[in-house]
Amino acid sequence: MDFSHSKRAQDTIQQVQQFMTENVLPIEQEVMQLNRKLNNSEDWRTWQALKPIEELKALAKQHCLWNLFLPDDQLGQGLSCQEYAPVAELMGHSLIAPEIFNCNAPDTGNMEVLYHFGSTQQKRQWLTPLLAGETRSVFGMTEPAVASSDATNMQATIIEEGDNVIVNGTKWWSTGLGHPDAQFMIFMGLTDSDAAKHQQHSMVIIPLDTPGVTIKRMLTAFGELDAPYGHGEVELTDVVVPKTNVIAGLGKGFAIAQGRLGPGRIHHCMRAIGAAERSLALAIKRGQTRQAFGNQIINLGGNKERIAKARMAIDQARLLTLHAAWKIDNFGVKHSMTEISAIKVVIPNMLTEIVDMAIQIHGGAGMCHDTPLAGFAAMARALRLADGPDEVHMAMVSRLELGKYK
Amino acid sequence: MDFSHSKRAQDTIQQVQQFMTENVLPIEQEVMQLNRKLNNSEDWRTWQALKPIEELKALAKQHCLWNLFLPDDQLGQGLSCQEYAPVAELMGHSLIAPEIFNCNAPDTGNMEVLYHFGSTQQKRQWLTPLLAGETRSVFGMTEPAVASSDATNMQATIIEEGDNVIVNGTKWWSTGLGHPDAQFMIFMGLTDSDAAKHQQHSMVIIPLDTPGVTIKRMLTAFGELDAPYGHGEVELTDVVVPKTNVIAGLGKGFAIAQGRLGPGRIHHCMRAIGAAERSLALAIKRGQTRQAFGNQIINLGGNKERIAKARMAIDQARLLTLHAAWKIDNFGVKHSMTEISAIKVVIPNMLTEIVDMAIQIHGGAGMCHDTPLAGFAAMARALRLADGPDEVHMAMVSRLELGKYK
Amino acid sequence: MDFSHSKRAQDTIQQVQQFMTENVLPIEQEVMQLNRKLNNSEDWRTWQALKPIEELKALAKQHCLWNLFLPDDQLGQGLSCQEYAPVAELMGHSLIAPEIFNCNAPDTGNMEVLYHFGSTQQKRQWLTPLLAGETRSVFGMTEPAVASSDATNMQATIIEEGDNVIVNGTKWWSTGLGHPDAQFMIFMGLTDSDAAKHQQHSMVIIPLDTPGVTIKRMLTAFGELDAPYGHGEVELTDVVVPKTNVIAGLGKGFAIAQGRLGPGRIHHCMRAIGAAERSLALAIKRGQTRQAFGNQIINLGGNKERIAKARMAIDQARLLTLHAAWKIDNFGVKHSMTEISAIKVVIPNMLTEIVDMAIQIHGGAGMCHDTPLAGFAAMARALRLADGPDEVHMAMVSRLELGKYK
Amino acid sequence: MDFSHSKRAQDTIQQVQQFMTENVLPIEQEVMQLNRKLNNSEDWRTWQALKPIEELKALAKQHCLWNLFLPDDQLGQGLSCQEYAPVAELMGHSLIAPEIFNCNAPDTGNMEVLYHFGSTQQKRQWLTPLLAGETRSVFGMTEPAVASSDATNMQATIIEEGDNVIVNGTKWWSTGLGHPDAQFMIFMGLTDSDAAKHQQHSMVIIPLDTPGVTIKRMLTAFGELDAPYGHGEVELTDVVVPKTNVIAGLGKGFAIAQGRLGPGRIHHCMRAIGAAERSLALAIKRGQTRQAFGNQIINLGGNKERIAKARMAIDQARLLTLHAAWKIDNFGVKHSMTEISAIKVVIPNMLTEIVDMAIQIHGGAGMCHDTPLAGFAAMARALRLADGPDEVHMAMVSRLELGKYK
Repeated sequence: MDFSHSKRAQDTIQQVQQFMTENVLPIEQEVMQLNRKLNNSEDWRTWQALKPIEELKALAKQHCLWNLFLPDDQLGQGLSCQEYAPVAELMGHSLIAPEIFNCNAPDTGNMEVLYHFGSTQQKRQWLTPLLAGETRSVFGMTEPAVASSDATNMQATIIEEGDNVIVNGTKWWSTGLGHPDAQFMIFMGLTDSDAAKHQQHSMVIIPLDTPGVTIKRMLTAFGELDAPYGHGEVELTDVVVPKTNVIAGLGKGFAIAQGRLGPGRIHHCMRAIGAAERSLALAIKRGQTRQAFGNQIINLGGNKERIAKARMAIDQARLLTLHAAWKIDNFGVKHSMTEISAIKVVIPNMLTEIVDMAIQIHGGAGMCHDTPLAGFAAMARALRLADGPDEVHMAMVSRLELGKYK
Repeated sequence: MDFSHSKRAQDTIQQVQQFMTENVLPIEQEVMQLNRKLNNSEDWRTWQALKPIEELKALAKQHCLWNLFLPDDQLGQGLSCQEYAPVAELMGHSLIAPEIFNCNAPDTGNMEVLYHFGSTQQKRQWLTPLLAGETRSVFGMTEPAVASSDATNMQATIIEEGDNVIVNGTKWWSTGLGHPDAQFMIFMGLTDSDAAKHQQHSMVIIPLDTPGVTIKRMLTAFGELDAPYGHGEVELTDVVVPKTNVIAGLGKGFAIAQGRLGPGRIHHCMRAIGAAERSLALAIKRGQTRQAFGNQIINLGGNKERIAKARMAIDQARLLTLHAAWKIDNFGVKHSMTEISAIKVVIPNMLTEIVDMAIQIHGGAGMCHDTPLAGFAAMARALRLADGPDEVHMAMVSRLELGKYK
Repeated sequence: MDFSHSKRAQDTIQQVQQFMTENVLPIEQEVMQLNRKLNNSEDWRTWQALKPIEELKALAKQHCLWNLFLPDDQLGQGLSCQEYAPVAELMGHSLIAPEIFNCNAPDTGNMEVLYHFGSTQQKRQWLTPLLAGETRSVFGMTEPAVASSDATNMQATIIEEGDNVIVNGTKWWSTGLGHPDAQFMIFMGLTDSDAAKHQQHSMVIIPLDTPGVTIKRMLTAFGELDAPYGHGEVELTDVVVPKTNVIAGLGKGFAIAQGRLGPGRIHHCMRAIGAAERSLALAIKRGQTRQAFGNQIINLGGNKERIAKARMAIDQARLLTLHAAWKIDNFGVKHSMTEISAIKVVIPNMLTEIVDMAIQIHGGAGMCHDTPLAGFAAMARALRLADGPDEVHMAMVSRLELGKYK
Repeated sequence: MDFSHSKRAQDTIQQVQQFMTENVLPIEQEVMQLNRKLNNSEDWRTWQALKPIEELKALAKQHCLWNLFLPDDQLGQGLSCQEYAPVAELMGHSLIAPEIFNCNAPDTGNMEVLYHFGSTQQKRQWLTPLLAGETRSVFGMTEPAVASSDATNMQATIIEEGDNVIVNGTKWWSTGLGHPDAQFMIFMGLTDSDAAKHQQHSMVIIPLDTPGVTIKRMLTAFGELDAPYGHGEVELTDVVVPKTNVIAGLGKGFAIAQGRLGPGRIHHCMRAIGAAERSLALAIKRGQTRQAFGNQIINLGGNKERIAKARMAIDQARLLTLHAAWKIDNFGVKHSMTEISAIKVVIPNMLTEIVDMAIQIHGGAGMCHDTPLAGFAAMARALRLADGPDEVHMAMVSRLELGKYK
């Protein structure tokens, strides 16, 4: 066993750490305020990208701290899943960081899909500008009318018709849909309900300006608009796109989703671990600088035990996620299903508890936007539902466990 | 022992229940949407009261379902604390309900303060319009610069000068400060640091248009502005008001706070219990109408156990609160300190868990404003800090418990 | 509402409290040691009743603190379920107390069965000596070969043959089976699998010296033999008893079990609440008298928060149980099914946590028999299974809750 | 990073796994019964070693599966801490296993002490027979009269007098003291209260037949005598042993304890993880073979979620412990204090919960000795106190964490 990171990973960690400390964290609060000022309305048509973010994107690209999530040493740094994991953790320290490194969801997942499954033309037209950070993208999976935790419930359709496909359906929680630079969505729908269970669905690229695409509204997630990305509800009515927009062929939807799955889960979880570390640090600093009842707050009641529990929970969560990353790298996603589902349950719940503790130590300051904590709390809570609720993933872990005894 | 409610309480319960069912719940969603449309900006100066609410206020007043919180049979229905408790629970089913019955915080607490401690002139000038629902009020207690959980940290000052007092200090989380009808705040500050520990502070009425009063901003509480009430930060610089604005005399701040304490806690907790019942009902209905994996969601995984746990937790919480109300009625606040602190810890935590469960069953719909759940979640979380964090109240319960052994 | 106890209850509480303080608690430790000395072997045939217990039984009888559980003012004090509840709590402070007042399970339940459903002859022969504390009895329900949480799994049979019934089957966890004074068991078995679902089973009195009755062994419950009562496994092979031993007629098993259910649950739970109060008191006293790291243990880490949580949990548990008792008294067992199942889940779990906390504060002393805590821990854990596991009762609460929405 | 075990570790894992499956597990139940039959009395003088265990010890020695805990390739297999860890996990599957491989506490810790710190003579006289499995030993640390979680409370004394030391004091929870082959104890006591804080205590070898050594009693740990080892209380009154029995010199007690600490903690925790895996497997098998309410028990209520939670908790616990072992191997105990304290808290609590779940699924069978579960439950609970209660270790983790901010 060896728990140390590779030289390459260590170097990238060091550089991203330094970039975070020097460039990102110092302007976080100011950027968040600017964002609330510019992008506070529910009307996404008024939203704008933030200039300080664009500037830092250029700087990060210049430092080659760009597309680090991509296991390609031309386009990124060629980091494996386990090498990128600690880097993603660092980005998780601030909600504004991931985009700066062009490493934010859902664009990362979409880039991976196009990188692994896209045609040459699809790559040129859609992937290249995403990799350059010039456009943004959306993923359309969840539907309002059905329990989307069971993907077979999906009602949207992608029907072949000559050289085109006709797309119908309503999606929501389509993150990034409100961004002024959002150009297209990768849309999943039912193509052939007579095919084998995992060959019924397709994924197709839908430019957002295609006739029949109507953005209905932006949703708040626990009070947060998450502008200028937003979580949108979008209706597609008889939308026609050429069959060349279908990714990897009709019926390949589940196969692609499966491949997209593992690394994205690692990224999300490592960022959440970063948010947990940041929350813990904020809790300690606050607890050491505020006084009540003649003592530092950190020394009151069970606060120190809560600090210890946070440390123990984070360390376990990180090891579980790093192990999952190592398993994906060495045995593939298909042989890592327990691990991938387990982190999806463990890490958001861990983050929820640690942010909650940190907020409690901050008092009123923890409830508003004067610290990143309320934002982390909303993110943590949303992560317990995004990409399937906890319960669906526990069912998966359980099914695999019981399967050992048959 | 007798766990049944008095005839008077039962009658009021029945009427409020009917009013909720017929008038409040049917328009809840529409009112919330209207509110997000009209009052979505952080700039409170643009906020407006909602017409449908004003109409229902008139209707409730007409039905004599008005000021029910007040133990006065002229101004309210003369309900005792334990009689009002189940009525408050019903109002808790909707975030828009309390104001409709003129029973929303912090106005109720302020009305109680003026009712019990106000001078004749103070009552005429400030209490009467509040009782009529024509104005709104604010309570200024928490300060941003210190840990306000320890009230002795308070830095604001109320200094006697001739016939006036000079008031300085910054308060935040002053709920209602953004409301267009807000007229005054009851402000607590330090008058004499040489006096006995609980005679150092005073409460004074500050009209919001007094020179030197500057509203700085409205805070979001877990993403919610809670417009058109709002949670404000306000700075008072050399504010001069006549000494006749001081409530019950200089140095009486703690004595008043103590009296204000108990019933308000009961109201908050019972409303939270109502929110929990509503959340449980929503969870069950959603769970019974959505399908996944070939089954109603309610039948999947541990969902039914969670329903049982919710029922058991709510029933315990309600009994604990009713018992506290009965104790206040029969033995007074001073002899009910364990009970009053206990419900402050137990009930918000109970609500937090049940709303969380209900959200989890709703999936995406639980995250946005399509149901009252996200609002309840923010309220529940805020209640764990409002009026002192859980930890301070556990310390109180513990201190009283250990005291029995000395 | 009125949370105060009746005059009659208050008087009995006062007397039992005094009896506990003066007579029971002072000899508890010595009696437990004597018991471990005399009755330490797994061979129940060597067990003997304890003389100090017999002496206190005589004293309690003399004080008319006898059969208090029985709602009959000739045989007991005529206490209702809600009046006996706080008395049972007091008895729960010591594991040796219930028998001293002739109020220990399963004899109480058996006495209730015979009192309510027994024939005149059955009462004379079996109930009278039980009421006098001269004999002990056993209840045979759980079977080793099937999941007894589902009573319809029961495999034992009670078959009519002329004037007799023939009884076959194996029962375990038959408490009291090892006691030298145990005379008979009330045995439940299947009589007619063609009858309606709740009319298939019967209860019959089986004298333990009937041919074909073989006690196989005494079981330990979490390491405790609970001598001289014991938890036995017993095999019945072609046991013949006269039909007059059947209680209330063949097929009445479930009806009787139902009636036996509610009050017994209240007793168990109130005793558990007493054990929790005792554990909390022991924790505080220990925590105030031991020093570590320059402080009383009670002041270290989160100990004081744990004390507060214990107080809040006990108070909620007590109110829940008292309310259930009141509901049984006023509306009957059939209309109190949620309440009766709820306390079965809530109270043993509450006790488990509080005993655990008290043990943790005691360190090594909490693990052995130097305090009552290890015994309480075993009892608490066993109560989570006895009379149906938590999960079965949560399923009941859930089923009734969901039923409201159909 | 590399989460795979070394070739040497993998080979040993495979051999121990096979030995467990073929030789240990098949006779576990029979050995436990034999033990309860032979060694059931609290009078340890009657206890005897078990023949089947002795036979398996010989067999394990013959297979070179002996002293595997010792990082010495002559005496053991030269396994590092991280290599032995998964082997210890396998031994944890059965309470009878560790002694069979001569890997049971406290002998392992005592052998390590003598191996690292003993003089040549001490090794020859005391270590060699221990390594051969011919004698047993005891460790005397905890005292009944003080809170031993704070080692500075220790009252026992080891006073220099000429060529001897005079030893006085009472120890309890001295595991192994009841074993017929127990020969000596390593006893810790205060030598010089004027020395620097961590140089005041000494460790000395006390042969149990030395005059002045009085074994007072064997304690039960949650009802378990754990014969034929036992947990003893022993009184030393003016016991005289030669100074050559002092280990590593007077004043070296803490230094030795520190060195003994880390690896022993890994062993304990890995065995607990093995017990958790065994418990989980038993739960699943039971749940799949018992029926209730028309379904396998495993499919009822939240049981499958509990299985998933168990898998996720075990996997996290194992990774935390393996990481701690790796850290000890690579950076030493002194730089692994957070890790060593963290596993001491996390793993026993994890085991407690998983055993509890498994017992709940077993019903009555889980309470008695028909499965290993009740034994595991007692062990898990005891581990939360042994070697310092959870709270002391959380305080350590917290102290180190807060220290980062100073």
